[in-house]
Amino acid sequence: MKTGESTAIDIAPETNNSGPIGKKKSTTPLLAVPVPDRGTHRMKRGLAIFDFVLRIGALAAALAAAAAMGTSGQTLPFFTQFFQFEASYDDLPTFQFFVVAMGIVAGYVVLSIPFSIVCIVRPHAVGPRLLLLILDAVALTVNTAAAGAAAAVVSLAHSGNSSTNWLSICNQFGDFCQQTSGAVVGSFAAVLLFLLLILFSALSLKNRH
Amino acid sequence: MKTGESTAIDIAPETNNSGPIGKKKSTTPLLAVPVPDRGTHRMKRGLAIFDFVLRIGALAAALAAAAAMGTSGQTLPFFTQFFQFEASYDDLPTFQFFVVAMGIVAGYVVLSIPFSIVCIVRPHAVGPRLLLLILDAVALTVNTAAAGAAAAVVSLAHSGNSSTNWLSICNQFGDFCQQTSGAVVGSFAAVLLFLLLILFSALSLKNRH
Repeated sequence: MKTGESTAIDIAPETNNSGPIGKKKSTTPLLAVPVPDRGTHRMKRGLAIFDFVLRIGALAAALAAAAAMGTSGQTLPFFTQFFQFEASYDDLPTFQFFVVAMGIVAGYVVLSIPFSIVCIVRPHAVGPRLLLLILDAVALTVNTAAAGAAAAVVSLAHSGNSSTNWLSICNQFGDFCQQTSGAVVGSFAAVLLFLLLILFSALSLKNRH
Repeated sequence: MKTGESTAIDIAPETNNSGPIGKKKSTTPLLAVPVPDRGTHRMKRGLAIFDFVLRIGALAAALAAAAAMGTSGQTLPFFTQFFQFEASYDDLPTFQFFVVAMGIVAGYVVLSIPFSIVCIVRPHAVGPRLLLLILDAVALTVNTAAAGAAAAVVSLAHSGNSSTNWLSICNQFGDFCQQTSGAVVGSFAAVLLFLLLILFSALSLKNRH
């Protein structure tokens, strides 16, 4: 642990200082406060990198869910004099909400990626980590509400409900149902990733000592 | 600030120690680490008390939502030879899920209250605070999924959907619709309270320095 002193200075938060002052700055807190411990530092950087990877995954899941729902639509190959049989996400307000909500979540994840990079560069920074944790919780709520609502409607579309006389539409619109089901699965994957993001943010906040 | 030394020892985390040792223990970290600052201590205790109050509110909201949904049911005052017109939360799987999920959330809140009290007694304890933050995020997810799913079905029951030929049932079952709508409102209130709980837990974790 005594070897590799220069590496330790390289990855320290105050890396822009010149030689002796930088060395003094990085050794003083080591004596007074147990914060910039090398193992903790590495662990926190690992958590930050993992956070970045999970964020990319959440972006992919949210975009895939929004795209799958947004492009869902099926026109049956027969029609009567009065209308054509057609199903689209536009017909159901829940699915419209789903597309908008997943789009917002994907946009938030894109905006949050710079903060995640800041957390990789400065693993001990508390501000960005806290901001990400709180906004992740809000995004998780939006995402879960959209996923739950769409799941309820998809399950109705699949199996219908005899008490309320809502008939299944998946017999007629099989492709539409499959695509919306896929979108729901994608959004629940994003929910899981957000839960993991919150877990790792909390762990990262904890291990400041 | 030099006066009121005994008060400072009274509210210090290590209050069970005997005189001189307790004094040594409570002054040593004051010199080495800036953690047990008196203002921070009071602020964190305030956050912990607020956490407790919010938790009681979330418990009330979750219980009210579960009870409103669980007791919802309406039998129309006329019937045919073959069946009676009756609507109950049992008829819709989404509403069953809602009752179970809100029951689980309410149970979790009850179990979490002791940890919240521990956080009031020891405002600087990190373990219980972190545990509450992570489990609150999980409870938030369950709660939001149930609320979103029930909201989607309630909105269908209110306005129906012409594309899928699902007719509104609220014309016939007005009381049923009102009660389920109230349950959805209650569950979204619980969602908001959980978001606030996560916010204050995160702030409490942040201000350890």
